[in-house]
Amino acid sequence: MKLYGYFRSSAAYRVRIALNLKGLTPEGSYVHLQKAQQRADDFLALNPQGLVPALVTDQGDVLTQSLAIVEWLDETHPSPPLLPADAPGRARVRSIAQAIACDIHPLNNLRVLNYLTHTLGVSDEQRNGWYRYWVDLGFEALERRLSREAATGRFCHGDAPTLADVCLVPQVANARRFKIDLSPYPTLVRIDAACQALPAFGAAAPERQPDAAA
Amino acid sequence: MKLYGYFRSSAAYRVRIALNLKGLTPEGSYVHLQKAQQRADDFLALNPQGLVPALVTDQGDVLTQSLAIVEWLDETHPSPPLLPADAPGRARVRSIAQAIACDIHPLNNLRVLNYLTHTLGVSDEQRNGWYRYWVDLGFEALERRLSREAATGRFCHGDAPTLADVCLVPQVANARRFKIDLSPYPTLVRIDAACQALPAFGAAAPERQPDAAA
Repeated sequence: MKLYGYFRSSAAYRVRIALNLKGLTPEGSYVHLQKAQQRADDFLALNPQGLVPALVTDQGDVLTQSLAIVEWLDETHPSPPLLPADAPGRARVRSIAQAIACDIHPLNNLRVLNYLTHTLGVSDEQRNGWYRYWVDLGFEALERRLSREAATGRFCHGDAPTLADVCLVPQVANARRFKIDLSPYPTLVRIDAACQALPAFGAAAPERQPDAAA
Repeated sequence: MKLYGYFRSSAAYRVRIALNLKGLTPEGSYVHLQKAQQRADDFLALNPQGLVPALVTDQGDVLTQSLAIVEWLDETHPSPPLLPADAPGRARVRSIAQAIACDIHPLNNLRVLNYLTHTLGVSDEQRNGWYRYWVDLGFEALERRLSREAATGRFCHGDAPTLADVCLVPQVANARRFKIDLSPYPTLVRIDAACQALPAFGAAAPERQPDAAA
């Protein structure tokens, strides 16, 4: 397997965590988003969307979209499972993951922040306000859910990490990088800390990737 | 089952299509987004995220996030399947669905367009340019993929509708409503037409919902 990623990409970070939890160590390839390497012809030939991550399997299939990749990993390498065994539990975990991957992250990634600054000409203050607004809106709802629902355990769902935690940890890291006040979200902070105690999460952190130094 | 939706919500539209394909007709409840009914206390008690769709199952579970709901439907009502039987096929279908649900739709839904207008104060022209930019960026990549990959058939994946088509059709409808020129996307238009020929898709259209008239 070969993973195309970028140290700061939250979506690539999710896949790194899932690979580590499964004990898999694919070859790494680094696509520098701030140098726009994702729009180079060779990468577009691999992934027409021009986004990381992309995972090339041992069979030569090119998989894209972080959540689809994690589901594929879970189907092809079932142990340890990243989704619960029951359908309502799977729906819960996927909905937490998607509340992050569909409703927070897409609004706050690099290409969107660049559009706000360079095309719409908004000020740094307005751009930071945009970032904060969508993180807070999403985190407030997640905090309410996770603090109230009985299915929440040491992790987002029970006492083992799932796809939900795989999405939560990169989003919390991103929020910290943008200096978001996390004190209104004690449950998210507690679960993030439980994840960080596992080597699979720690080893996936952006600052520990080979392309972080460059 | 009871579905909380809104006729114009693309995410609710996806779930309506999937329910129709499965031959399921849950009770309907309508949450008027332009009247902000999704932020009323009774709806927030049901779904703290304040978003539609939400599906209440016969067991009383409240399911949220359209893709998680469709996956749950597919697991609990397997016929006809909305995901292929093989893991690489499932990864392909999910990645197409997520290229829409994570990379196009979140940038162009009502709450984001409202933020651009009311908080950032951008002009109508700038807001429409934003809409067009993200649709075109996403559709160009999808068109390249779907027109080139051998797995594309009458529908996004083979000759039966899947989760990918369930996401494509509402996004195409939304693009038409915003008068996007679809001529650069002949494969998307062809697949949309194949879907529209099926009653399950036609009956899920926004203009055919009970709350569309109000």
